[in-house]
Amino acid sequence: MSRISAAETVDVRFPTSQQLDGSDAMNPDPDYSAAYLTLVSDAGDGLVGAGFVFTIGTGNNIAAEAIQTVADALVGESVEDLLADMGATYRRFVYDSPLRWLGPEKGVVHMAIGAVVNALWDLKAKRAGQPLWQLVSSLSPEELVGLVDFRYLTDALTPEEALEILRRAEPGRAERTAQLLERGYPAYTTTPGWLGYSDEKMVRLAHEAVADGFDQIKLKVGHDLDDDIRRLALARREVGPDIKIAIDANQCWDVDAAIAWVRELQPYDLAWIEEPTSPDDLLGHATIRKALAGVPVATGEHTANRVMFKQLLQLEAIDVMQIDAARVAGVNENIANLLLAAKFGVRVCPHAGGVGLCEAVQHLSMIDFVAVSGSWDNRYLEFVDHLHEHFVDPVRVVDGRYLAPREAGAGTEMLAASVSEYRHSAV
Amino acid sequence: MSRISAAETVDVRFPTSQQLDGSDAMNPDPDYSAAYLTLVSDAGDGLVGAGFVFTIGTGNNIAAEAIQTVADALVGESVEDLLADMGATYRRFVYDSPLRWLGPEKGVVHMAIGAVVNALWDLKAKRAGQPLWQLVSSLSPEELVGLVDFRYLTDALTPEEALEILRRAEPGRAERTAQLLERGYPAYTTTPGWLGYSDEKMVRLAHEAVADGFDQIKLKVGHDLDDDIRRLALARREVGPDIKIAIDANQCWDVDAAIAWVRELQPYDLAWIEEPTSPDDLLGHATIRKALAGVPVATGEHTANRVMFKQLLQLEAIDVMQIDAARVAGVNENIANLLLAAKFGVRVCPHAGGVGLCEAVQHLSMIDFVAVSGSWDNRYLEFVDHLHEHFVDPVRVVDGRYLAPREAGAGTEMLAASVSEYRHSAV
Repeated sequence: MSRISAAETVDVRFPTSQQLDGSDAMNPDPDYSAAYLTLVSDAGDGLVGAGFVFTIGTGNNIAAEAIQTVADALVGESVEDLLADMGATYRRFVYDSPLRWLGPEKGVVHMAIGAVVNALWDLKAKRAGQPLWQLVSSLSPEELVGLVDFRYLTDALTPEEALEILRRAEPGRAERTAQLLERGYPAYTTTPGWLGYSDEKMVRLAHEAVADGFDQIKLKVGHDLDDDIRRLALARREVGPDIKIAIDANQCWDVDAAIAWVRELQPYDLAWIEEPTSPDDLLGHATIRKALAGVPVATGEHTANRVMFKQLLQLEAIDVMQIDAARVAGVNENIANLLLAAKFGVRVCPHAGGVGLCEAVQHLSMIDFVAVSGSWDNRYLEFVDHLHEHFVDPVRVVDGRYLAPREAGAGTEMLAASVSEYRHSAV
Repeated sequence: MSRISAAETVDVRFPTSQQLDGSDAMNPDPDYSAAYLTLVSDAGDGLVGAGFVFTIGTGNNIAAEAIQTVADALVGESVEDLLADMGATYRRFVYDSPLRWLGPEKGVVHMAIGAVVNALWDLKAKRAGQPLWQLVSSLSPEELVGLVDFRYLTDALTPEEALEILRRAEPGRAERTAQLLERGYPAYTTTPGWLGYSDEKMVRLAHEAVADGFDQIKLKVGHDLDDDIRRLALARREVGPDIKIAIDANQCWDVDAAIAWVRELQPYDLAWIEEPTSPDDLLGHATIRKALAGVPVATGEHTANRVMFKQLLQLEAIDVMQIDAARVAGVNENIANLLLAAKFGVRVCPHAGGVGLCEAVQHLSMIDFVAVSGSWDNRYLEFVDHLHEHFVDPVRVVDGRYLAPREAGAGTEMLAASVSEYRHSAV
């Protein structure tokens, strides 16, 4: 038996605001940051479990404090017990009543629980010698259902329905695993589209994206309508009619404004409108989707939890569910989200970028493909070409596709040298 | 001109779990705690601005870290500038993009912003020599509208509609202020109802509540149906048919379970069912309310922000809006909540208890009565008789009514001796 011997959280900040990478209608100058956790055991195998909360600068210390508070409780506990029943381990954190009071199931504490849960999954996958997506995709339907918290979901998805979805996907698992290993998972790129980039830089990057094999790009919108029209026209002219262009407003509009603004951009053939309004405005998304019939509506990177996703689906408010690896309570809650999407027949195109979000979320799309929805039709993993060099097992995107990770773990471990160089402070 | 010279946040925890005060279906053994902020200026007037986040123990340090992060930015700033336009001051915090990323507008960071906003209101009211409710109630309708952030609200409430509501209430302000000062605001009590109390203790406290002049009490339910039926029968027998009994499930049920369980309790004549399910499940509340036609549905103490309240109202999901003084972004966001309730004709019965929630929220109900809805019909402030002795200006509840505060300030300042005695740590 081995025990968790240490939990260390570091406030890591990268000075990305200097290049306006990541700039959008609501976030003009982010410093991409991670509150980064490593769990160490006394097993003597040299393996650590890594997880993180992604933030954009100020307040990363709050996330670090929250992670440390959640993780401190694990020090001295049996690693084998924690990893043996990851469903119980996850629920233990989520139902810790004083921590729950600080959400419930939302905001910094929920994200911190996600970091701890993901760090445990990283350790579990490393111990198993498998990449996370393969480890989870090889669990039985019953084991997968055991990972989910169905509380507050049963009016939309029961454990029995989840089991049925997973059993339906079971026969094709081996074939889809082979496809993934051979071809990778489709990606789109946001690299050209940051709001702070000049037209020239945007056009050049759009050109490069197509040359690199992507068949979808995304542009940030919502700051100035004339700018958006000009940029979209330029981008459409550059990439031609066959490349998809999604737009992303990063929550900047009220409901009526979203409808009016997007109508002006509709002639440029939109793959989707992302985050048209507050992520909490479920009814608002439904109203916008209905009014903009024909423009798919996407959201999810700031959707706080599975209960919110459930309602977006019940309301038929979205066409595209954008799960995020570090917003909800980790792998477990995202399996619930994947199951909800499968139940309602909505495609999942994860949010990524930031620090390590690509590395982490690729596993979830691959789990979805192999073991849940069984489909990758019209589904894309977001790709942003930032900060991958700081990870032990960085994503490899080739010809517009994420190559399936082959290294053991969840992809969440950062290089010690990077953590040390960009360390802002430790808890 | 004076400047903010210091911002100090202290993690204060009271060992309430020893008495099972505050125990309910989701929170078996809370230690009522406050992440407590004081803002000090160099004015030499001895006045401090106090605000807090209420928590139930573990994680209070996270709230304290968040408050300190928000408040640190104020040190050195002009107090007069900050207080002159409290609308702008509030929006500045809410739209700080890296902090917003950690919500947006929910969870620990949002609550921390609330503590800072409330501390500034406390200082503003003390400087004005008025209790907060009178200060705010004497602002013009235009000034009140200027305090609100209408972003994401305009599909339900425009600034023009808000102005109309406030103007409608204007002529009766003086008369209602006089009524408040003479009679106080109606209260109900939760003191008898904690889940951890024996039947004997519950019955004794219910008897005392009626003797003390309350005409509504509240019982916690949701742990065991037979227990709930027995306790409700005992309570109803004790208080007779004329006293209202509300029940509170503290989010413990799924939608179908809530409907089935409350139907069993309906024969005991329920004033409302509070928090039947997840506070995020807006559609769930609507479904429950429709199915339980005749039992009013109440929620709000964990409702993260005005966008969530907006939708509860749009969906006709609640009969009673239970605002909380320390959950959202302070006085400003709660004025938005009061205006939304007035627009939709829903009564506001605030959540209180905890540490200082009664002291803080009474001002909001009084603002509602004087300047917003203009009504106190069937409206009650929650009262729980805990921990008031630690406040400089504790609530005074007499004959089942909150006496209107007459001291200057927002009621949020704790006694220095209490802060010192129950200090867990400081940031």
